[in-house]
Amino acid sequence: MGRRIYNFNPGPAALPLPVLQKIQEEMLDFKGTGMSILEISHRSKAFEEVLDDAIARIKRLLKLDNRYHVLFVQGGASLQFIMVPMNLAVPGRKVAYVDTGTWSSNAIKEARILGREVAVIASSQDREYCYIPRGIYVPSDTAYLHVTSNNTIRGTQFHAFPQTGTVPLVSDMSSDIFSRVFDPEPFGLFYAGAQKNAGPAGVTIVVVREDMLERVPKDLSTMLKYTTYVEKKSMFNTPPCFAIYVVQLVARWLEETIGGIARMESINRRKADLLYDYLDGQDFYRGTADRDSRSLMNVTFLLPNAELEQRFLKELQTSDLGGLKGHRSVGGFRASLYNALPVEAVEVLVGFMREFVRRNG
Amino acid sequence: MGRRIYNFNPGPAALPLPVLQKIQEEMLDFKGTGMSILEISHRSKAFEEVLDDAIARIKRLLKLDNRYHVLFVQGGASLQFIMVPMNLAVPGRKVAYVDTGTWSSNAIKEARILGREVAVIASSQDREYCYIPRGIYVPSDTAYLHVTSNNTIRGTQFHAFPQTGTVPLVSDMSSDIFSRVFDPEPFGLFYAGAQKNAGPAGVTIVVVREDMLERVPKDLSTMLKYTTYVEKKSMFNTPPCFAIYVVQLVARWLEETIGGIARMESINRRKADLLYDYLDGQDFYRGTADRDSRSLMNVTFLLPNAELEQRFLKELQTSDLGGLKGHRSVGGFRASLYNALPVEAVEVLVGFMREFVRRNG
Repeated sequence: MGRRIYNFNPGPAALPLPVLQKIQEEMLDFKGTGMSILEISHRSKAFEEVLDDAIARIKRLLKLDNRYHVLFVQGGASLQFIMVPMNLAVPGRKVAYVDTGTWSSNAIKEARILGREVAVIASSQDREYCYIPRGIYVPSDTAYLHVTSNNTIRGTQFHAFPQTGTVPLVSDMSSDIFSRVFDPEPFGLFYAGAQKNAGPAGVTIVVVREDMLERVPKDLSTMLKYTTYVEKKSMFNTPPCFAIYVVQLVARWLEETIGGIARMESINRRKADLLYDYLDGQDFYRGTADRDSRSLMNVTFLLPNAELEQRFLKELQTSDLGGLKGHRSVGGFRASLYNALPVEAVEVLVGFMREFVRRNG
Repeated sequence: MGRRIYNFNPGPAALPLPVLQKIQEEMLDFKGTGMSILEISHRSKAFEEVLDDAIARIKRLLKLDNRYHVLFVQGGASLQFIMVPMNLAVPGRKVAYVDTGTWSSNAIKEARILGREVAVIASSQDREYCYIPRGIYVPSDTAYLHVTSNNTIRGTQFHAFPQTGTVPLVSDMSSDIFSRVFDPEPFGLFYAGAQKNAGPAGVTIVVVREDMLERVPKDLSTMLKYTTYVEKKSMFNTPPCFAIYVVQLVARWLEETIGGIARMESINRRKADLLYDYLDGQDFYRGTADRDSRSLMNVTFLLPNAELEQRFLKELQTSDLGGLKGHRSVGGFRASLYNALPVEAVEVLVGFMREFVRRNG
């Protein structure tokens, strides 16, 4: 099958090998149709089954009751930064955001471009976004509170979501959806670009609660209204069929091979513990996130100086470990431990890091 | 490789078999990266090469000079119905449209939702959109003239574009891009959802001329501005990497296997002639489009009555011919003869139609 590396990419990221093998196997003839999944009509029975199964599995995995609609939208989380305030703002009320780094900041920026009155009610900008703000209070007349559940660039994550009372919570969960159990109840809407934990780039999973749809302005452009996707089951126009098919295969793998989100979470905790325990037990590498805010998905760390970082990077390039370079905006290193990354990969990484210290520490 | 049928689907549609085989071959290890194309970073050298090669090939195939930018956008043609008037309307001037059926009508609807002043300067609605209006005159103070170059549902196509003088022409070319030679000069912008002639569902090719960018309002949402895609080479956020990769493979097939658009056009004319010549030489089946407006891409026809149509449909279902049912809004039959459909498929279809007449005519 060719060489396969340990893929620590931050997104697009590793997919489960059985999912890739299934795609490969079905590429020329999808379920006896005599056509590729890339060539079948989105109105065909074969594709409708894919779509329905993907929705059903996502609802089971996340324990969503019938108030929640699962939608597939194009444009990535960045388009949701626009659609959320377009659809869910309420005239005369502020929209509130917590700023925990690049993606939150971008979401805030887009709400402001649309002329919404934005309250940034908490921020960790004062210490380079290395922590998640605590004790967040949101006034009850706020239209919604938006948070980024996991911050891929800074390696921080909400371990408990803010208490918002009657104010609906909205979250960008692009980098931790399906990684841990959470209660959907406080959420009016959450969304995730699929390319980290749920599938390939090219589709965004949006989960919206029925009561939020009353807020959608009637005069919005068709493709920018959540109601269009609800009414047409994400098929007002041709959806990104292949990406949805891969999401379905990933959801099936989560249910049938892993055994659900709770099991996935315990594997993810094992991976994160392996790496954080190693980081905490030495003083060569330095984790950049505060301990109480550390992400289970993205572990960010630095080396003692730039020269050693260069050497580390160079040695990585000839190893079987890929995707560990930190985001271009912050430097350093980042190990993304998404669902599809096996425990073994983290063991190999820790071994590599140990060996590097032995020779350079 | 499993059974493969003759795929007359209207979109998503047939892809060249060598393209599908290449995808299959590279699925687990893309060019020695040890990762799937679905798992590599959009910022990686491997993906940048895909993107650059796709753009270069599209520019060569369409003979676009350096004033034209090739962009990859998500959301399908339906999002372009919104982005075109958002970006290219000019305050105080009307935007003009030709209405040749469902997709034109949808484009007009979205321009109106945005509050633009729309002039529908020609329409073929009077005869169920079975023809392309002629003698179109557009006032010189119009912001742009929008046409749908090929109408998949009604089987009509512009064989010559309207003369617009200094008014930039804008066209939805979703169903005939890459199918025939045309002069890009009068176009300020054209776009095509890839899933008919250029790749899979999930990416839209947008070609925009440099001077159009001056019109883009500064205060537009980032993901809805053409300037964002130009400045960031379609990578402001994660693009639909896999769909772009397939577009690259299709463009390569067009250049290297077919030998360019002129060669492709002559093959497409051969296919269309085969089917239209047969239709014109008998009186059982009846083509629905006026002769001078017939599409090279989508051939629409009816049978003498509903009972025979049912029988025809039933026999198709046990044949090796797929995707021939007409659009749900108009009924009848439609043979989509996109680039990837081989001449042989049309020969088999004509044989099937002849044989059906012999038994039922």
